[in-house]
Amino acid sequence: MIPVKPQRFLDDLHALRAFGAAGVGKGVVRPAFSDEDIAARDWLAGKMEEAGLTPVFDPVGSLFGLAEGSSVLMGSHSDSQPEGGWLDGALGVISALEVARASKEAGGPPVSVVSFQDEEGRFGVTTGSSVWGGNMTLEKADTLTDRDGVTFAQARARMGARGGDFVDPKQFTGFIEMHIEQGPTLITSGEKIGVVGAIVGIRDMKITFSGQQNHAGTTPMGLRRDAFQGVSAFNARINERFRNVVTPTTVWTIGHVTLHPNASSIVPGRAVFSMQWRDGDSDRLGRMEKIVRDTAAEVADEMGLSLEYGPMLGLEPVAMDARLRGALEAAAEAEVPGNWRVLPSGALHDATNVARLMPVSMLFVPSIGGISHDFAEDTDEADLVVGLNVLARAVAAL
Amino acid sequence: MIPVKPQRFLDDLHALRAFGAAGVGKGVVRPAFSDEDIAARDWLAGKMEEAGLTPVFDPVGSLFGLAEGSSVLMGSHSDSQPEGGWLDGALGVISALEVARASKEAGGPPVSVVSFQDEEGRFGVTTGSSVWGGNMTLEKADTLTDRDGVTFAQARARMGARGGDFVDPKQFTGFIEMHIEQGPTLITSGEKIGVVGAIVGIRDMKITFSGQQNHAGTTPMGLRRDAFQGVSAFNARINERFRNVVTPTTVWTIGHVTLHPNASSIVPGRAVFSMQWRDGDSDRLGRMEKIVRDTAAEVADEMGLSLEYGPMLGLEPVAMDARLRGALEAAAEAEVPGNWRVLPSGALHDATNVARLMPVSMLFVPSIGGISHDFAEDTDEADLVVGLNVLARAVAAL
Repeated sequence: MIPVKPQRFLDDLHALRAFGAAGVGKGVVRPAFSDEDIAARDWLAGKMEEAGLTPVFDPVGSLFGLAEGSSVLMGSHSDSQPEGGWLDGALGVISALEVARASKEAGGPPVSVVSFQDEEGRFGVTTGSSVWGGNMTLEKADTLTDRDGVTFAQARARMGARGGDFVDPKQFTGFIEMHIEQGPTLITSGEKIGVVGAIVGIRDMKITFSGQQNHAGTTPMGLRRDAFQGVSAFNARINERFRNVVTPTTVWTIGHVTLHPNASSIVPGRAVFSMQWRDGDSDRLGRMEKIVRDTAAEVADEMGLSLEYGPMLGLEPVAMDARLRGALEAAAEAEVPGNWRVLPSGALHDATNVARLMPVSMLFVPSIGGISHDFAEDTDEADLVVGLNVLARAVAAL
Repeated sequence: MIPVKPQRFLDDLHALRAFGAAGVGKGVVRPAFSDEDIAARDWLAGKMEEAGLTPVFDPVGSLFGLAEGSSVLMGSHSDSQPEGGWLDGALGVISALEVARASKEAGGPPVSVVSFQDEEGRFGVTTGSSVWGGNMTLEKADTLTDRDGVTFAQARARMGARGGDFVDPKQFTGFIEMHIEQGPTLITSGEKIGVVGAIVGIRDMKITFSGQQNHAGTTPMGLRRDAFQGVSAFNARINERFRNVVTPTTVWTIGHVTLHPNASSIVPGRAVFSMQWRDGDSDRLGRMEKIVRDTAAEVADEMGLSLEYGPMLGLEPVAMDARLRGALEAAAEAEVPGNWRVLPSGALHDATNVARLMPVSMLFVPSIGGISHDFAEDTDEADLVVGLNVLARAVAAL
């Protein structure tokens, strides 16, 4: 058993929260490559050094704390959503730091730590681990832009002299990521731990409808080519047609809509919106993509709109490694007997990309109200410590 | 007949276009109280002075060029849409300036000129003439905000020492506004002049649906309270239900939509959108409002959303004054025999508000392609001059 120190772990979690603190509850505003994100990574690099690890920034701003020789890798990400919670990503990074630090102090197994960059997708989807894992080339990533038109290349240049080479994954025997569930399952059942069986796959793309911008008072309804009407019709038809394809765990979302020029007296000439869908089955993700593309083309044709697709960002469903997962299950049973479960991850995580390089597994702790990607996101600190202890026990048993 | 000078009129129109020139075609970006708008008004005040008129800014930034004694008032507005054309408003102001100037030079009837402020509704709907006409109190107007949260009070403070008292409307015998049609009727028929019979009424309000912002991967579809889904359902039902109430000339528009936080991986927690509708019949506008409110309440109830309405900005349909309209019709018949028509104005204009103070009438010239509120807005210069000559002839005959 690795003698982790819960209070030290909690103190570091709260210290990290101070970078980009929103001033609303425990919320944080720490998007990838913001001043707050970079300052937090510099602070974290210092903590790694104190813990006897060697801090290394890779070219995309992911921060590794390397143990000597062969080691297990643990961690998550420290960037946040535009309006994020204090635990999304941070929990996995700081729990890894505590386990690595305590193991080093006790002469336990070597543990390395990582905080990947842009997991929250300011530019893409889990951009930092996606490039490291080989799911996307650095050249491709550099062309991605955020909503203000800033490119990933411009953003990562803000890391300045910190950036070194990519870290060789061969030194790691596997990857373990602890995370908040971000859903209602555990908090509803009262269970303390979720051992992830698989991570669902995701598809995410921007769609643009272009029509004719015109005066909202003098353009007869029949002569309009209104881009917002295109988005609304697309949404209604998708909701109807997906019903024939989806399961109760399938989800889809239009979370971003930008109209141009977005004025109440002007018929919208252009609408850019996001279409994202997630499921555990690759074939289903593909069938849904066909419905998305067929429906968008049909609506554009009927309404006299032109249609453009942005790059399709996608990740396949990923099963967890049996050995690592078994260690987490055994540790969970030892810490909270009969009060844990195996469940799928509906959220995307860096582990999805890391699975291309090494065996991976994940551990969930409950989210109060199932709320995440919101300032209100939180977890009982006692539950956080249970997760830390399960991690420490599992790593010692590997 | 007042000896107007077409070239001088066109030169001034192009000079005004230089303030906030978009660099795209003849487009302009000159929203109310922007540096470009204020500079244009200072230039216009100078032109009024040269023409022998007394320039006066009122407290809301509307600029009057006053003739001595009793006079007819002519003009429109010189602020533009966020992406506007060079003639929307500017044509009415500069044609009025030329008629007033030429009449003064020839010892003709006294003509005063006005450029109202914020006709394009950065803050409300025809804010400047609405306050002057008594449709809205200055106190109420001061509380209006633009999309960046700037209040009307803050914006009009930018006029600094220019602002004087409100101009006494009793000195004016009537108001004549020339404007581009901003629609396809005249350009399609090939007619050169439209004498407005009535201006349609308008209703415009912001509607907010609030649900629960949450993670787009871990929130089951059945548990979502997605604000965008509320907007989409509202739009679909309105389109269906309005069909039982509207005429072929009725129009309605959702031109502005803002989702919060507007990220592809987050279920939208809040949606603010504009709902605007226009018709020549007050009763119909009221029946449509009931459908809007009933449908919004129904959608909010079904989807577990909360519902808020912004202030309702509205103007009633307005008939044109018979004497002024008759003078415009006679002048049109003299200038372009058999090649003009009487038509309604689907667009809102300052004349709607001025009608509360004095007799009003309006004159339209063709819009190429019927396009307006767009950089591409344009009119053949020969058609602009026809409009100028009709105005000059009508004023001389009053």
